[in-house]
Amino acid sequence: MPRKLAQGSFALQTPVGIREAAAVAGKKEGDGPLGESFDEIFEDTTLGAESWELAEVELQRAAVRHLLQKAEIESADLDLFFAGDLQNQCTASGYHARSLSAPMAGLYHACATMAEGVALSALLTDGGGIQTVMALASSHFCSVERQYRFPLNYGSVRPYSAQNTATAAGAALIGKAGGAPYITAVTIGRVRDMGVTDLNNMGAAMAPAAMDTILRHLSARGSKPADYDLILTGDLGRVGMELLRTLCKDAGCDVSQVINDCGLLLYDRVNQDVHAGGSGAGCSAGVLCGHLFQAFRQQRLRRVLFLSTGALLSPAMVQQGQSIPAVAHLIELSAEPEVI
Amino acid sequence: MPRKLAQGSFALQTPVGIREAAAVAGKKEGDGPLGESFDEIFEDTTLGAESWELAEVELQRAAVRHLLQKAEIESADLDLFFAGDLQNQCTASGYHARSLSAPMAGLYHACATMAEGVALSALLTDGGGIQTVMALASSHFCSVERQYRFPLNYGSVRPYSAQNTATAAGAALIGKAGGAPYITAVTIGRVRDMGVTDLNNMGAAMAPAAMDTILRHLSARGSKPADYDLILTGDLGRVGMELLRTLCKDAGCDVSQVINDCGLLLYDRVNQDVHAGGSGAGCSAGVLCGHLFQAFRQQRLRRVLFLSTGALLSPAMVQQGQSIPAVAHLIELSAEPEVI
Repeated sequence: MPRKLAQGSFALQTPVGIREAAAVAGKKEGDGPLGESFDEIFEDTTLGAESWELAEVELQRAAVRHLLQKAEIESADLDLFFAGDLQNQCTASGYHARSLSAPMAGLYHACATMAEGVALSALLTDGGGIQTVMALASSHFCSVERQYRFPLNYGSVRPYSAQNTATAAGAALIGKAGGAPYITAVTIGRVRDMGVTDLNNMGAAMAPAAMDTILRHLSARGSKPADYDLILTGDLGRVGMELLRTLCKDAGCDVSQVINDCGLLLYDRVNQDVHAGGSGAGCSAGVLCGHLFQAFRQQRLRRVLFLSTGALLSPAMVQQGQSIPAVAHLIELSAEPEVI
Repeated sequence: MPRKLAQGSFALQTPVGIREAAAVAGKKEGDGPLGESFDEIFEDTTLGAESWELAEVELQRAAVRHLLQKAEIESADLDLFFAGDLQNQCTASGYHARSLSAPMAGLYHACATMAEGVALSALLTDGGGIQTVMALASSHFCSVERQYRFPLNYGSVRPYSAQNTATAAGAALIGKAGGAPYITAVTIGRVRDMGVTDLNNMGAAMAPAAMDTILRHLSARGSKPADYDLILTGDLGRVGMELLRTLCKDAGCDVSQVINDCGLLLYDRVNQDVHAGGSGAGCSAGVLCGHLFQAFRQQRLRRVLFLSTGALLSPAMVQQGQSIPAVAHLIELSAEPEVI
């Protein structure tokens, strides 16, 4: 069962891990540096659906289809699943869930949803009695642009601090693991708000939350950045990543040698028009369930801190002049189970 | 640790329970039959805030303030908390969480959020290692009307099948219990959709999900409706409740002697203008954390099935002609811990 290290930080013992994972993405993500890591790439990002919202439903469906096939199970074998997305009322997840024969727990933590779902899944399966839990998150560039900013047809121009919402979905199966990556610890994030009000600079809004979670986790574990091959944040992008380096350094914790960001890995920022990098709940979900999972399976990584970072704004709150709260959840992945 | 009874249904053993609970509400709810059960009633439903969205933030803050005072703990003592609401991007919860020194896991399952949060809290605390978890949900009539239907100022008229979103918040502290109500079992809901497309008849959309969860739970437990003093659904209202009775009867399970609904208890439908009854994530949260919790403490109830029911629609999906999926999560409450 989980062992409490500090408030919100737990070491896991079963050992539990990511038993199987699958990731799917749109054309732009498929054309990027991680293109090879996706189980399926959709050149047509409508996925044959009548609206962008329904296209994202199909994106989730594809990720889960690949996951269940690879794991050789059916949705009726899941004890439960966590899912969330960025659409108002999380409709990609709710509408997709109609076709699954499994109990669903709906999550919302914006782009932090994937690590939240994996962390809760790991805590539940380590607790015992619950064996097989799926965690799922997605985003779709076109449904998000319409909802948070402007319909695509307006052709609106965005500043360079803005990020590109990934069209991607990731699904992971968490349970008693027989191989890497093991989930050796988790830290659930606290909501932080340093007063950023710019809807087009969410990296800056999220960096303080990422720092808070990283420092809490290192303190709870008694570890330091050099103990890890990689500390991978969800989607801070170029601006937020720069800020995180500075914030951590000012706090006496230099992460610069091991830090990277899913939003920076996902695209080729020189040749792809993505401004500050990738974002969206599907960004960290797709990178975790594709690239990162495979790197562990291929024994290219030993010990990693993976965070999903979420900006908890709504257009209504931003229009009311409110600042943007953020949260970051963390899972610690390891090539070896931990003996506690 | 939890013992799996069937897919998504678990018996709990620690014993865990609701250690403390608090509920707050607006004037209309305070004037209703359950008025006495609230810890605080706000005659001014702006709660002094500048917008309806921020008023709901204050509503959550009040519920948590009462909960922590009654439990004689601080937010820094929480291992983590679950919270959710109906605002786009769950902003009542996200913005309120800034003031809490506790790790947050954000939920979205519409009006099913409270039972979802309590069920997950119970599974986690029964698993061990995690001791003190808070579950929180809220809704505010005015923020919801603007977002899902029309701004109040339009004075739009609604059909009698429509329900009245409760201005209420409920917060519960879940952990190893030393008194009633104990949480003896939970069933996580599956998403159901029987094709209802009417935004003003969400009771009908949710009834099939409630039936599915009740029947699954009774089957998993090997129990029958007569084993319970009460089966209390979240917010089906008059239309949904009537439909649920019929659906269950047709499925060979007559619940009519023990069934009731938070949306029917919360208001005096003869003298208060609420059409089909109450709804909203705060409806079942407020009734659970006020009326129902107190009934157990006063030894007026022995064994209860409590469900929160959620309609997972968004205005965008309804405008696209899509039907309304729904989900219902269940917790079984008992005056005595169960020896398994």
